Amino acid sequence: MEKIPAIFWLAPVVSVLALSFAYYFFKKMMEAPEGTDVMKKIATHVRKGARAYLRQQYKVVGIVFIIITVIFSIMAYGLGIQNPWVPFAFLTGGTFSGLAGYFGMKAATFASSRVANACRTCLDGGLRLAFRSGAVLGLTVVGLVLLDISLWFIVLNLAIPETTPGIKLLTITATMLTFGMGASTQALFARVGGGIYTKAADVGADLVGKIEANIPEDDPRNPATIADNVGDNVGDVAGMGADLFESFAGSILATSLLGAAAYLSYGEKIQINAVLAPLLIAAVGTLLSILGVFLVKTKEGATQKQLLRALGFGVNSSAFFIVIFSFVILYFLNIPNYVGLWGSIVVGLLAGIGIGQSTEYYTASAYKPTKMIAASSHTGPATVIISGVGIGLISTAIPLIIVVVAITLAYGFATPNLFSFDAESINYGLYGIGIASVGMLSTLGITLATDAYGPIADNAGGNAEMAHLGKEVRQRTDALDSLGNTTAATGKGFAIGSAALTALALLAAYFEEVKMMFVNFLGRSDELINGVPAKDAQFIDFIYYYDIHLMNAKVLVGVMIGVMSVFLFSGLTMNAVGRAAGKMVDEVRRQFREIKGIMEEKAEPDYARCVEISTKGAQREMLIPSLLALFIPIFVGLIFGVPAVTGLLIGTISAGFALAIFMANAGGAWDNAKKYIEEGNYGGKGSDDHKAAVIGDTVGDPFKDTSGPSLNILIKLMSMAAVVTAGVAVSYHLL
Amino acid sequence: MEKIPAIFWLAPVVSVLALSFAYYFFKKMMEAPEGTDVMKKIATHVRKGARAYLRQQYKVVGIVFIIITVIFSIMAYGLGIQNPWVPFAFLTGGTFSGLAGYFGMKAATFASSRVANACRTCLDGGLRLAFRSGAVLGLTVVGLVLLDISLWFIVLNLAIPETTPGIKLLTITATMLTFGMGASTQALFARVGGGIYTKAADVGADLVGKIEANIPEDDPRNPATIADNVGDNVGDVAGMGADLFESFAGSILATSLLGAAAYLSYGEKIQINAVLAPLLIAAVGTLLSILGVFLVKTKEGATQKQLLRALGFGVNSSAFFIVIFSFVILYFLNIPNYVGLWGSIVVGLLAGIGIGQSTEYYTASAYKPTKMIAASSHTGPATVIISGVGIGLISTAIPLIIVVVAITLAYGFATPNLFSFDAESINYGLYGIGIASVGMLSTLGITLATDAYGPIADNAGGNAEMAHLGKEVRQRTDALDSLGNTTAATGKGFAIGSAALTALALLAAYFEEVKMMFVNFLGRSDELINGVPAKDAQFIDFIYYYDIHLMNAKVLVGVMIGVMSVFLFSGLTMNAVGRAAGKMVDEVRRQFREIKGIMEEKAEPDYARCVEISTKGAQREMLIPSLLALFIPIFVGLIFGVPAVTGLLIGTISAGFALAIFMANAGGAWDNAKKYIEEGNYGGKGSDDHKAAVIGDTVGDPFKDTSGPSLNILIKLMSMAAVVTAGVAVSYHLL
Repeated sequence: MEKIPAIFWLAPVVSVLALSFAYYFFKKMMEAPEGTDVMKKIATHVRKGARAYLRQQYKVVGIVFIIITVIFSIMAYGLGIQNPWVPFAFLTGGTFSGLAGYFGMKAATFASSRVANACRTCLDGGLRLAFRSGAVLGLTVVGLVLLDISLWFIVLNLAIPETTPGIKLLTITATMLTFGMGASTQALFARVGGGIYTKAADVGADLVGKIEANIPEDDPRNPATIADNVGDNVGDVAGMGADLFESFAGSILATSLLGAAAYLSYGEKIQINAVLAPLLIAAVGTLLSILGVFLVKTKEGATQKQLLRALGFGVNSSAFFIVIFSFVILYFLNIPNYVGLWGSIVVGLLAGIGIGQSTEYYTASAYKPTKMIAASSHTGPATVIISGVGIGLISTAIPLIIVVVAITLAYGFATPNLFSFDAESINYGLYGIGIASVGMLSTLGITLATDAYGPIADNAGGNAEMAHLGKEVRQRTDALDSLGNTTAATGKGFAIGSAALTALALLAAYFEEVKMMFVNFLGRSDELINGVPAKDAQFIDFIYYYDIHLMNAKVLVGVMIGVMSVFLFSGLTMNAVGRAAGKMVDEVRRQFREIKGIMEEKAEPDYARCVEISTKGAQREMLIPSLLALFIPIFVGLIFGVPAVTGLLIGTISAGFALAIFMANAGGAWDNAKKYIEEGNYGGKGSDDHKAAVIGDTVGDPFKDTSGPSLNILIKLMSMAAVVTAGVAVSYHLL
Repeated sequence: MEKIPAIFWLAPVVSVLALSFAYYFFKKMMEAPEGTDVMKKIATHVRKGARAYLRQQYKVVGIVFIIITVIFSIMAYGLGIQNPWVPFAFLTGGTFSGLAGYFGMKAATFASSRVANACRTCLDGGLRLAFRSGAVLGLTVVGLVLLDISLWFIVLNLAIPETTPGIKLLTITATMLTFGMGASTQALFARVGGGIYTKAADVGADLVGKIEANIPEDDPRNPATIADNVGDNVGDVAGMGADLFESFAGSILATSLLGAAAYLSYGEKIQINAVLAPLLIAAVGTLLSILGVFLVKTKEGATQKQLLRALGFGVNSSAFFIVIFSFVILYFLNIPNYVGLWGSIVVGLLAGIGIGQSTEYYTASAYKPTKMIAASSHTGPATVIISGVGIGLISTAIPLIIVVVAITLAYGFATPNLFSFDAESINYGLYGIGIASVGMLSTLGITLATDAYGPIADNAGGNAEMAHLGKEVRQRTDALDSLGNTTAATGKGFAIGSAALTALALLAAYFEEVKMMFVNFLGRSDELINGVPAKDAQFIDFIYYYDIHLMNAKVLVGVMIGVMSVFLFSGLTMNAVGRAAGKMVDEVRRQFREIKGIMEEKAEPDYARCVEISTKGAQREMLIPSLLALFIPIFVGLIFGVPAVTGLLIGTISAGFALAIFMANAGGAWDNAKKYIEEGNYGGKGSDDHKAAVIGDTVGDPFKDTSGPSLNILIKLMSMAAVVTAGVAVSYHLL
């Protein structure tokens, strides 16, 4: 193979830089004063709860990882249907993802009281502190991903022997992809466990506190309030971090493999450039993210709009410059059709923005849909639910159309003769889809910072409320929090959109995996059919050998199982929240009944008990849905083989994306419809309309924070599991 | 072509027989006394409302039919991309389906007061009358389908010229399929319009009547009560009838086409037998249905269980004998592998029963899921909704697995070498899937009678309540009604299951349609590729020419648009109910406020105004979702061509089936959880738990009676539209 080009080293350098800045922001935040003793005490409660949860979570996940590693080792060393590096790559992916979640959450839990304290003096300080604490998560995630990929690339380049020209790079990239499988597995548990935790606490706290006892949100008299604040951290910080760690890693790795396959015939010099392009774009995006973080500032007395503009300025500057720099990178790397590929990147970026905009339209109270839900509260909770479900379902249309257009354009631009769908163009088109997903995610460092900012602001508000800080302080934290709700909603849209594109890149990578086995193990590469041009003949042979055409009933079977998996998984996570929340409600009611003096603040509620209920509930409930996601692709492969697995992935990605958008948007819209009423519309707080809207909001909680976001991981993990175990479906299948 | 074999004439004879019995049951029912003057008056109100609605509906649908017929005529006579018989076949399908709905509803609206009156003396008389009135719909539907197909077969056999052997039958069956498209279009409007109508009235009546004014269901003081009863007829009788008319016709016609294609090479004698087999199985099933209707009887004082057993005995006897007779038919027709095909039929029947059982498990209060929802009412309406959504989502797993297993077995049994998936076996396997759907639907005459029985019993109860008949009479009608709820739930499961299998048969037919154009228009049939056996080469050529393999990004695009269509369509119908119900609520509140003396029964409410609101709401709201369903397949074909349309159908069928099951089961479970509480559990009627459950029930109304069942038609209509306009996608497409 050609020597690794010098520009490669940009990636490890940027990764170290990102991690250093993360550490710098963390140190700076730790220097800020923690506030009063009460504030400290509350923060310690939350921090302890969060740490206890994470420890418990990593124990369970650790066992799962050991089991999977053993299985992979058997597949690699016993059956020989997998690369010997797979078990190790799998483990590092999981470990790095876990570390990112841990550090991000640590920063968030240390930040909350400090942000609340900063708000005692001014708004600007609060915003900057909260945002830079969020940046700790953002930069840790992208830094660790870049680091892990760079290290593996160096190691595998040394370890894997040179064979036929071009094949080495294919093998390296295919092996690295399994690192993503480790990240996916970790992410699933983080999202599902965290999601169940946070919503069990939230629903439980709201149902008894707000509705029955008529005490406000985050009131220290509510026994579930600490658990609720812990939940924001484990669900929204650690969970979101693991989710996007996975997307970032998955999109880069899948695209590298697609690049190795597409540019195989161009010689190794071009091929290695195509392999490194996604990594380098991500590295430059990370550099721009660091710069962007420094651009976010605001002044005292800033309005909600100005705050939003401050965040937007940082994010948009990074996005703007990546458009320019990605062109420079592709040009510099001298990849054929670099203009077209640059078009694909821009398409990915625009798709991300488009999905975010659509999320905002369907969930912000400034627009018609949420206003309609608020208006329907006039006829009671039933119509609130009906209209929320209706709007949620409708809201899937625009994002799906955006993805469809994005696939078509990203594919079409990347093909040599614009929009050619013939056998020869396919590899280039799929690389285009991959690179679009990398484009969308390139500035993740800063977009993730704005996402993590939300729960930090929320927790700061909680801290201020529980510590009975003055009205002015509460107003400032409220301003930060309300901003956080907007960024959280668009962040969710972004997370789903990037998950969908990443999963599509993985689906494309699945074809490459299968094709490699077709060529390597089955030795069918040079079996030419007379009368058809060589490449086409190989391609036809490939399609025909695996029967991956649409008249094969197994494809349909696969799609149906894929759709089923998505529905079943969502139902299981929904019910898990219902069950855990039910237990929380009973506990809160019990404490109100049995611990005398809670209401008069003469006795402290037993916060720890509620934390424990959420922790146990989450751990117990997360196993079955998670294992389902891991094993369905393997079982389908074992019974029906490659065509059904392909169908499975197509079904899972399509239905999973739609269901995730439906759940996230319906939940977001219910939440904001309630807030809209609380602002004094339709009777305001305490009216019957408000009560109806609160019920909608409560229903929306598991929609938008448990089942919806968990689906992001489901679609990526199932694709990953299919890619990594492709050898099983190829070598053994019943029908 | 061979002469039409004598056994063909069984079909028209049975069709006349079925229609005669329908007329006989109708006459018998009309002879029964109508009851008191009040009862007559109420029945007249309902009948007038229903007739007014249907007249309005047929006007709108008429306009749509004229437009589509013009388009088809242009396609057939102008562009030459369609058979010249298509516009006519389309029109008769629509007309016959409309007639079936009209007659069925006429019988139902005449029956309600008579059933209530029969219940004044004994239960047995009431059951028999209600059931036989339901049989009018059942037998009219199957009779008209058999008649229309038989007539067209005779006409086309005379009209279409003899060409290459075997091609004539392919042309005849392909042409007849468009008759199904007319039925689909009619059905969509019936289901969507009827569904919106009935739930706008029901939700409106419940929200104000039950919850705000605290008056019981069907109380004559409620202005929306007549509209509610009208709704049962237009939604559950006419809508359900049109739905299954379509499934029955679609499955027979698609299977005939698949038979003509699969057995082309066996010579015309075998080929015509394979074409007629589905028609003959349906004819014999219809004969058995007539016999089954006469087997349903019970005695006075029968328990709920005995009533259910009485109905079950009729249905099961028909099913049992069709298993035997279908074997005889296949054997007699001498179709190769008749044992395997018979296996496929049995698979279809068992799948229907399995889906029904699963529906019952997830929606009947005797089982855990519904009890869980009832228990969650203890923590308020939010947890009722959460657990209902969770259980609804989970409940999709078993039916989807059943369909997956059924597809695999029905396909596998029908292939010459059991479970062979190679190019040569595909046609036989697809015929197997088709014949399984025919098997499932063969005894539709009697299953539809039990479905239509439900709303008739419901209306009889309404009539008794409004006419203030004695407690004993109410108990009897309640017993009938409660039985109706069980049959309605399993009936819904059956309707969805058969819709899915019919749609799959249509998907298979789509391949045949496209293949015929490949052979006829494009003349690619004898372009053999050297080195590959002839048949395989043709097949590869076919797959390759159309690019219908899984690596084509257009397939993915199609699946995504399919999933999107399903979500968007459900959201639109959901919101339509929300909007129409909101208007109804306002109107009922206004009448309670402005018409003095309603509550004391001194003044009569303005029923007609509520009927008008429902009618207008339904008409206004049904157009957009319906047109969407019609035109999406055409647009996708025009932009992306055949691979995307195929993906579209796969996506629509899979996601549509899952969403339909989710909605139907969640709705059914909420309904029965409420009834379970009303039986005295968890505090019983009037408790907070009950109020929470009523909210769940109200949310479930549009789930189970509007959006859910409308999806059945959506998946069939989109498949039909794709089949009929296949020429467009083949001849013109942008990318």
